[in-house]
Amino acid sequence: MELLKQRIQRDGKVIGKDILKVDSFLNHQIDVQLLNEMGKEFKRMFKDEKITKILTVEASGIGISCITAQYFGVPVIFAKKTESKNLDGETYESEVYSFTRGKTYKIRVSKRYIGPEDRVLIIDDFLANGKAVLGLKDIIGKANALLVGVGIVIEKGFQEGGKILRSQGIRIHSLAIIKSMDSGKIEFEEDEF
Amino acid sequence: MELLKQRIQRDGKVIGKDILKVDSFLNHQIDVQLLNEMGKEFKRMFKDEKITKILTVEASGIGISCITAQYFGVPVIFAKKTESKNLDGETYESEVYSFTRGKTYKIRVSKRYIGPEDRVLIIDDFLANGKAVLGLKDIIGKANALLVGVGIVIEKGFQEGGKILRSQGIRIHSLAIIKSMDSGKIEFEEDEF
Repeated sequence: MELLKQRIQRDGKVIGKDILKVDSFLNHQIDVQLLNEMGKEFKRMFKDEKITKILTVEASGIGISCITAQYFGVPVIFAKKTESKNLDGETYESEVYSFTRGKTYKIRVSKRYIGPEDRVLIIDDFLANGKAVLGLKDIIGKANALLVGVGIVIEKGFQEGGKILRSQGIRIHSLAIIKSMDSGKIEFEEDEF
Repeated sequence: MELLKQRIQRDGKVIGKDILKVDSFLNHQIDVQLLNEMGKEFKRMFKDEKITKILTVEASGIGISCITAQYFGVPVIFAKKTESKNLDGETYESEVYSFTRGKTYKIRVSKRYIGPEDRVLIIDDFLANGKAVLGLKDIIGKANALLVGVGIVIEKGFQEGGKILRSQGIRIHSLAIIKSMDSGKIEFEEDEF
């Protein structure tokens, strides 16, 4: 997605070899207009899939998921990372290792909101090692729902997540795939569509 | 907001004396269509305030903030609760005690995204004891920005948050104010507008 790539080049900050800061428009301050363009793009990619739910993980996946959900006319479910009195006991759970936070955490989705009738689109802001998506896929499987596809804003193509997921036959569309960020220079792969 | 009150009556679950579960449409599964109606309402209430930023706290404030931001044409900033490599060192911080989680946590906003020129609207899903809003207000003050108002989806009118904030002269609009939830029966205060 050209608009997104331009924005990453303009405002993204590369830290070291593998950290890309986009907190000026994606995961701290959020440019909602840009999110709308992303949402339209996800709709274009998955419009024939009869999506019934969009699934993401708190926190930075929530904004793009809610904006995107407007184009599909379906609810969003965000998996919770923390125990909360606001969540019932009856949940599907999975474990996710976060390299960003350097620890493993549980993600939970209430059994009430996902089931065998659901055709689920996973949306997230980043795809790096793929652990978060695999955790969500695990939960979708436990609910006997169908994982229809994965929509990612920024994929770190130089990490293994995309390869692992695609090798499992999961349909992934990433709006921007970064080939390399060596010496602070961001290079993108060609759009797949 | 009548539509919201009806939804709370229909789908809200009262646990004990002061916990209201709305995870079927607000803070776990999210009804984005309903959020759009809320966003229009917040716009109607604050349309003359020349809002430049919408500020919230992760995670459950992000969805309603992003949908609402579409009506104001401004960015959303969500305060982070956790240390993260994705956030720069230079942050405004405040401390918030969460009764839901039963602990105090820090919230952080990068100094880069809020400043003296900003007219800030705080949006959050719940107002109970008011600690989260006070933490955000503290950060807005440290940034020398102006807190223009607070838009709340559900205010627990029987807890002290609303009173404390209004006594400080803060303009609060809550889409639904719960007068009492005794013995599981939800009673609302009359709309203030």
